[in-house]
Amino acid sequence: MLTPAFMPVGTQATVKGIPPRDLEQLGASMILANTYHLYLRPGDELVARQGGLHRFMRWDGPILTDSGGFQVFSLSEMRKIDEDGVTFKSHLDGSMHRLTPEKSIRIQENLGADVIMCFDECPPPTDREYNVLAMARTHNWAERCRQAHTRTDQALFGIVQGGVFHELREASARFISALDFPGHGIGGLAVGESKEAMYATLECMDAALPVEKPRYLMGVGEPTDLIHGVMRGIDMFDCVLPTRLARHGAAFTHHGRINMRNKVYQEDERPLDTGCDCYTCQTFTRAYIRHLLHVGEMLGLYLMSLHNVHFLLQLMREIRAAILADQMDIFAQAWLAHYQGIQPAMAPGRG
Amino acid sequence: MLTPAFMPVGTQATVKGIPPRDLEQLGASMILANTYHLYLRPGDELVARQGGLHRFMRWDGPILTDSGGFQVFSLSEMRKIDEDGVTFKSHLDGSMHRLTPEKSIRIQENLGADVIMCFDECPPPTDREYNVLAMARTHNWAERCRQAHTRTDQALFGIVQGGVFHELREASARFISALDFPGHGIGGLAVGESKEAMYATLECMDAALPVEKPRYLMGVGEPTDLIHGVMRGIDMFDCVLPTRLARHGAAFTHHGRINMRNKVYQEDERPLDTGCDCYTCQTFTRAYIRHLLHVGEMLGLYLMSLHNVHFLLQLMREIRAAILADQMDIFAQAWLAHYQGIQPAMAPGRG
Repeated sequence: MLTPAFMPVGTQATVKGIPPRDLEQLGASMILANTYHLYLRPGDELVARQGGLHRFMRWDGPILTDSGGFQVFSLSEMRKIDEDGVTFKSHLDGSMHRLTPEKSIRIQENLGADVIMCFDECPPPTDREYNVLAMARTHNWAERCRQAHTRTDQALFGIVQGGVFHELREASARFISALDFPGHGIGGLAVGESKEAMYATLECMDAALPVEKPRYLMGVGEPTDLIHGVMRGIDMFDCVLPTRLARHGAAFTHHGRINMRNKVYQEDERPLDTGCDCYTCQTFTRAYIRHLLHVGEMLGLYLMSLHNVHFLLQLMREIRAAILADQMDIFAQAWLAHYQGIQPAMAPGRG
Repeated sequence: MLTPAFMPVGTQATVKGIPPRDLEQLGASMILANTYHLYLRPGDELVARQGGLHRFMRWDGPILTDSGGFQVFSLSEMRKIDEDGVTFKSHLDGSMHRLTPEKSIRIQENLGADVIMCFDECPPPTDREYNVLAMARTHNWAERCRQAHTRTDQALFGIVQGGVFHELREASARFISALDFPGHGIGGLAVGESKEAMYATLECMDAALPVEKPRYLMGVGEPTDLIHGVMRGIDMFDCVLPTRLARHGAAFTHHGRINMRNKVYQEDERPLDTGCDCYTCQTFTRAYIRHLLHVGEMLGLYLMSLHNVHFLLQLMREIRAAILADQMDIFAQAWLAHYQGIQPAMAPGRG
């Protein structure tokens, strides 16, 4: 896989709305699937009996599974954490389940991804006291995950925690590095802290993480964060943002996000993003896509998802080219000067 | 266009869930769009300003629009029919609208399809008294539609009505034929009458309709009906069935329909339909598709829609080949012997 890379998220063994053949055409290399969701439905043992995740979902490229930890903390109800693991209630049917480091690894071995992640605890990033406790638990669990891991055809990544507290992050980075994982996830960021705090936290870990091993900033996919992340040494990203935004009617453009449900696009004959070479932009007008979204047609979600995923994959291609040309700073400056984040609706002709 | 042909339905200027490039790959030639829906949203004048339906939805192949009549009678609320036309309440927002033969033609000229249909009245097929009145109105409206039609780049088809009453159908076929339209729709069938009544009604019109002009059996798409229709001289069909069934989790197979939500398919590694060469069947297992449907993933609808539309298009290709080889009877017999209609769930290995 070429890095730095953005990994589209296929939560339930499908990148929402995008058939694998289209995903391949978009140039996606690695994708992510969620252990928590697949453990609940259809079940990791069923996936194993079906030949593993690659065969089940017909994705020949590399796959990464997360540990289930983040979803247990963000989605499930009535979770109870102890030193050994977490007991939680399924958000689907209220059934009780238990995840431990060993169980997470067993599930991920059943799913059979190429890269799997240590089971960790994800506390709110600005609660210092909680982060001290959670970090200790995450370190303990990282050692147990390493012990539990048996499949030699899977790479197990460690995860650095510590919230936005630099001394905790440095300590965590040192501790996790010492366990000699083949790569390092950076967890617990982009969950409510400021952009400045996030970027500063990335910088503070830099010296403590080995440069030769991939650094994976988990759950981050805002275009500006990808650029700032790469400039701080990040090699891998994942996020549901492009497909989730699409379902909410928002499209990435080089000028910022636009809300395609807005009436101003009703007769706009331009593509979603001028100059974009995805199927959506090469073929359809904003007027047509706005109509599809307005009347609730599935094709609208497909075209929007395709474009948004393409947008981030294309950004990463441009970033890789800029790095090879030793022009990352210039590229970042030029790109960020255009991009205005979330935009108010623009009248046709003014964009 | 090669006939006999099945036209997938793109109600709101999109065949539900299938991007135009995939539809083209499936070998669809002509598609249908609905005047009633497009008149309400986004509006036929907007479509005209966007360059017409072909350009709006990016479909280069031929398009047929219906007259809006059937939807006014089946979808709208509080409709009031008089000799001049129909006043109705939109099923979307309760707004009041009026359709007349002239208005339907104007809307269809704005939409800009290649084939457009006369505005007709669709009564319940077994109510004789109503059918006598409705047929007279349909004939009167057909003459007015012909008068109102101005675009020479569009073919206007007449519509034969008359329910299941042979003498009414014959009279209607003779009357409509005499108006010298380039093609003839057969309306008011497959809406509740028995299969036998439908097939017998098709037979009774045979002599009264000119053989050199296409006969279009409106709203019919059950595989068995396509075969029986072709054997009774039908050249064109349309139906929402393949995409609607897909949304309900049902797949066409050569042995009959199967409900893919059923738990028996949970670990079934076969394709939806063994021997089918569509993308869905060439790539994915029933187990995976069942998972997608079970967890409500959009990809499930896409893969099912693709397969079901392919199934009917492929059936029509086989029918055309059988006709060219002068073996339609043998083909029909062999095909129908396999097909059992709606099937109870089958255990893996028994299908």
